[in-house]
Amino acid sequence: MHSLSMDIDKVAGGEQRRVADMVAIEEPLEIRLAWSTPKGRATRSISITMRTPGNDNELAAGFLYTEGIISGQSDIDAIETCGPPAPESGLHNVIRVELQQDVSVDLGRLQRHFYTTSSCGVCGKTSLEALRVAGHESLPAEVTFSASALTSIPDKLRAAQNTFDATGGLHAATVFSSDGKLGPVMEDVGRHNAVDKVIGRMLLDGTLPGSTNGMMVSGRASFELVQKTLVAGIPLLAAVSAPSSLAVGLASEFNMTLVGFLRGSTYNVYSAPERLVS
Amino acid sequence: MHSLSMDIDKVAGGEQRRVADMVAIEEPLEIRLAWSTPKGRATRSISITMRTPGNDNELAAGFLYTEGIISGQSDIDAIETCGPPAPESGLHNVIRVELQQDVSVDLGRLQRHFYTTSSCGVCGKTSLEALRVAGHESLPAEVTFSASALTSIPDKLRAAQNTFDATGGLHAATVFSSDGKLGPVMEDVGRHNAVDKVIGRMLLDGTLPGSTNGMMVSGRASFELVQKTLVAGIPLLAAVSAPSSLAVGLASEFNMTLVGFLRGSTYNVYSAPERLVS
Repeated sequence: MHSLSMDIDKVAGGEQRRVADMVAIEEPLEIRLAWSTPKGRATRSISITMRTPGNDNELAAGFLYTEGIISGQSDIDAIETCGPPAPESGLHNVIRVELQQDVSVDLGRLQRHFYTTSSCGVCGKTSLEALRVAGHESLPAEVTFSASALTSIPDKLRAAQNTFDATGGLHAATVFSSDGKLGPVMEDVGRHNAVDKVIGRMLLDGTLPGSTNGMMVSGRASFELVQKTLVAGIPLLAAVSAPSSLAVGLASEFNMTLVGFLRGSTYNVYSAPERLVS
Repeated sequence: MHSLSMDIDKVAGGEQRRVADMVAIEEPLEIRLAWSTPKGRATRSISITMRTPGNDNELAAGFLYTEGIISGQSDIDAIETCGPPAPESGLHNVIRVELQQDVSVDLGRLQRHFYTTSSCGVCGKTSLEALRVAGHESLPAEVTFSASALTSIPDKLRAAQNTFDATGGLHAATVFSSDGKLGPVMEDVGRHNAVDKVIGRMLLDGTLPGSTNGMMVSGRASFELVQKTLVAGIPLLAAVSAPSSLAVGLASEFNMTLVGFLRGSTYNVYSAPERLVS
């Protein structure tokens, strides 16, 4: 369920009409993690994120993976909704991820989130070090994308989107192959959630790391999106709008190709342009 | 410092040129809070947010206020940068807010952030209850805004922005009076930070609550932005793009006027249309 119909007042040229309109749904999702410790099974609420309902399993799996809490699909025993649906919306807004018996959880990585607020996955130097420790060295250089494949993605993404045109309020993300074929397309009020859903789908499908894929997102490219794309082993990130300085810095450091302002046949390349061939 | 110049590859119609381009700066800001407890002075890191440097004092003050940790300007003894600048950027990315001796800090409110992740200030029912407890009842109904004042704001905001046109990567927020006069204009890679900076400036100027003001933001209107606007006592929030379902729900509940898709002379009104007069 991505959007909700409601009556609104639409004003244009001084005239006001009461019309039915579609609004993108935003609801909280609480992710609970259950894992084994020497003292027995532990359960802990590790995240509440505002998200668009749908593909919650993918969102939870992708979040745990891109935040470095799990290292692969085989760490997961089960993902299930938890408790009754929320009384007002009828939606399940709590999800529990059961990890396998032999998976240990690094509370330090969770701890990081104790100092995390809006739109910030990981921050600055520490995160760069954490990524290096986790073995995310430079991405493979041999994969290339043709300019025509790259510039075909925004139209394909828009065509594949279910909700964007109806509400104008959802971000989208997808992965694509070097010949321009789309993988899973995900939508969310939060761009980082759309990316986590795509990566979570790939995790559950067993198609990670995505070393032959590119990632495409609507809107801007932040540090956090580069970081998530990097963890998924994807060597190219393209955005419809601008990247930030720290996004360019992280992409450069790990030799990720970062493309911004991808519109029609025009785009900017901020790092590792050698992966783009004519 | 809002933007950084760098050389990039610009591709248009199959032609590639090396050009200098401006990119919006994104850097982490750690907010540390110092306050008095029965056992002495406590200091704690309470937030790391990715922000565009500049107006960090306003961001810290606004964040503490909109998240309910302080209740006014008089709670603050001092705001100062902490430690040496970051070696790579030369920026001060840690800021310490010293609270007055008699201010008690509700660790429960901080605790809330321990379960908070990207783009989520507060979540769902609990936050609605928290807002009610904090005394944020329905907003004053008697303040009205003329349609011509409202529709004049986006152009004024764009004219006042320092960076947006140069980088295309920054969000902006401002407050305006019922006759269309702009208050402080703030920019940031994060929309919520731009709003916190505006509210923080008002807090430091002693102009809160903003009960005769409207708030205007670039981009979308999320639950979090409605919540921050509500805490500041501002009865109208206008956005260039779409609101989410939960944004509309919270605005309706507190009788806040929520305007979306404000472009030229057209806009949508999602709640409390009675504050808009012709």
